[in-house]
Amino acid sequence: MSMSLANRKIVIIGLGLIGGSLARALKKLDLGCKVFAVGRNKKVLEQAQADGTILGWSVDAKDLCRDADLIVLCMPVLSIEQNLQALAPVLAPHTVVTDVASVKGAVVDAVGRVFGTIPANFVPGHPIAGSEQSGYAASKHDLYKGRKVILTPLPHTNADAVELVSLLWQASGAEVLTMSVEHHDEVLAATSHLPHLLAFALVDTLSQQGTREEIFRYAAGGFRDFTRIASSDPQMWRDIFVTNADATVSILDEYMHDLQRLRELLLNRDADELFRTFKRANASRNVFLSFSKNQNPKHPE
Amino acid sequence: MSMSLANRKIVIIGLGLIGGSLARALKKLDLGCKVFAVGRNKKVLEQAQADGTILGWSVDAKDLCRDADLIVLCMPVLSIEQNLQALAPVLAPHTVVTDVASVKGAVVDAVGRVFGTIPANFVPGHPIAGSEQSGYAASKHDLYKGRKVILTPLPHTNADAVELVSLLWQASGAEVLTMSVEHHDEVLAATSHLPHLLAFALVDTLSQQGTREEIFRYAAGGFRDFTRIASSDPQMWRDIFVTNADATVSILDEYMHDLQRLRELLLNRDADELFRTFKRANASRNVFLSFSKNQNPKHPE
Repeated sequence: MSMSLANRKIVIIGLGLIGGSLARALKKLDLGCKVFAVGRNKKVLEQAQADGTILGWSVDAKDLCRDADLIVLCMPVLSIEQNLQALAPVLAPHTVVTDVASVKGAVVDAVGRVFGTIPANFVPGHPIAGSEQSGYAASKHDLYKGRKVILTPLPHTNADAVELVSLLWQASGAEVLTMSVEHHDEVLAATSHLPHLLAFALVDTLSQQGTREEIFRYAAGGFRDFTRIASSDPQMWRDIFVTNADATVSILDEYMHDLQRLRELLLNRDADELFRTFKRANASRNVFLSFSKNQNPKHPE
Repeated sequence: MSMSLANRKIVIIGLGLIGGSLARALKKLDLGCKVFAVGRNKKVLEQAQADGTILGWSVDAKDLCRDADLIVLCMPVLSIEQNLQALAPVLAPHTVVTDVASVKGAVVDAVGRVFGTIPANFVPGHPIAGSEQSGYAASKHDLYKGRKVILTPLPHTNADAVELVSLLWQASGAEVLTMSVEHHDEVLAATSHLPHLLAFALVDTLSQQGTREEIFRYAAGGFRDFTRIASSDPQMWRDIFVTNADATVSILDEYMHDLQRLRELLLNRDADELFRTFKRANASRNVFLSFSKNQNPKHPE
């Protein structure tokens, strides 16, 4: 009597990198679930249907969602409220809804505003996968293989709903973990949101230099990694920073404090303390590698 | 009557990633030059000779350098002075000397201290290639393929010496460019030294969090790129920051100013201005890619 995805009607709203990769993974696995998509770009939706990735599509979520078993909201954080508002009138009580946004507090708040309370069948989720590329064209069936998906159910969230969403991501190859909404947003502020902010800032700083062309011409790989991150989708990141501003500023302040310390070490030519700091960063890298060695290195977020 | 490397005696001092890769490239090309190495680790030197990568080796640079045509100093910036001091008594007037350090002003200063003036046969150089890995074991014959090498000759530097060093790097697959010492150090502060400082700082900041293990466990790719950079050789980077402190602090200050601006945008939830900033970073990334598309992406520094 274990739960399965067979015969479930799954509607993916937003067929970009994340939604498209999920649809491709489910198609590839041939689990017997019926996958539909909702989007704004008809060409993309037609192509996905022609591919066989989805069974059908609509530009109006209400058409497909009335009898859905599972709805996956694959859109930037700040688009979720409006989309849920449109869906609310047709949502059946049994339908499980989840999302993929990188910030969970703001999503839970939005859901609360739409429904007055957080429905027991709403499961906040976040696949830690992605790329600086976006759109259906960049999607791939193995995007989630070996990656982590964090679910942040509330105390009253339906356990069966959590299990269904877990099944979805496990089937796609991911490891599913749960933590609290607040903790998720703090951890992600440190590990993902801050690094992206630093990368956006570096590219911005350097592009404003008079010698910008030359700087780009001679840029080494360290800079290349930064620019890769900084080419991520601007709308998605705007939404993330606006909705996780406090946690991001909090870790940013610690970071700037550390930068100030390094600045002093540079001005004092404090070779010994610089060496100790870099040694410590080396050691931390090794700790990090020991945690991440099972992750898929080909699809970094 | 064009210059060639055939029959030249080339001594590489320091057989790590950079020196080892140069030796391997020269061996692979079979140009008829005679490549020797000086190092401290006999096992590595013996292995390189057994490989056929070098013809011979010594732990004492003087042994091999008396009759060298070209000496390549492959060591951290702050080690150059002491090594040159030891070499000075045996250096023949015709011998061309070059280095590979990421900072050129400090190298020129060190050379000046050793010789009282900068010999016309000394050619400051910097291959913009490397990796977070170090040591002979990580060296590879194609490390320089498609990469840039910057030479910073002084006004009185011997043109034939510059040509010989250019030949060396061109043979290894690199594109050779020249610029002034000061300009090199400013451009590299922006494109390489600052990004490394930011990466070291981020890994350091996060590793001091109480939730460090968890942060590492859930770290996404953005953070992975930072930690990769931060695992670079601590001694090499200590030397770079100590010797290029002023240029690095100068661009760091601009960067911190930009970070402060972003911090304000976050606190104000200024979605529009954040979006514009990220859009601009996206556009800069495209400019960067148009400059770097011919570079070898497999061996970032």
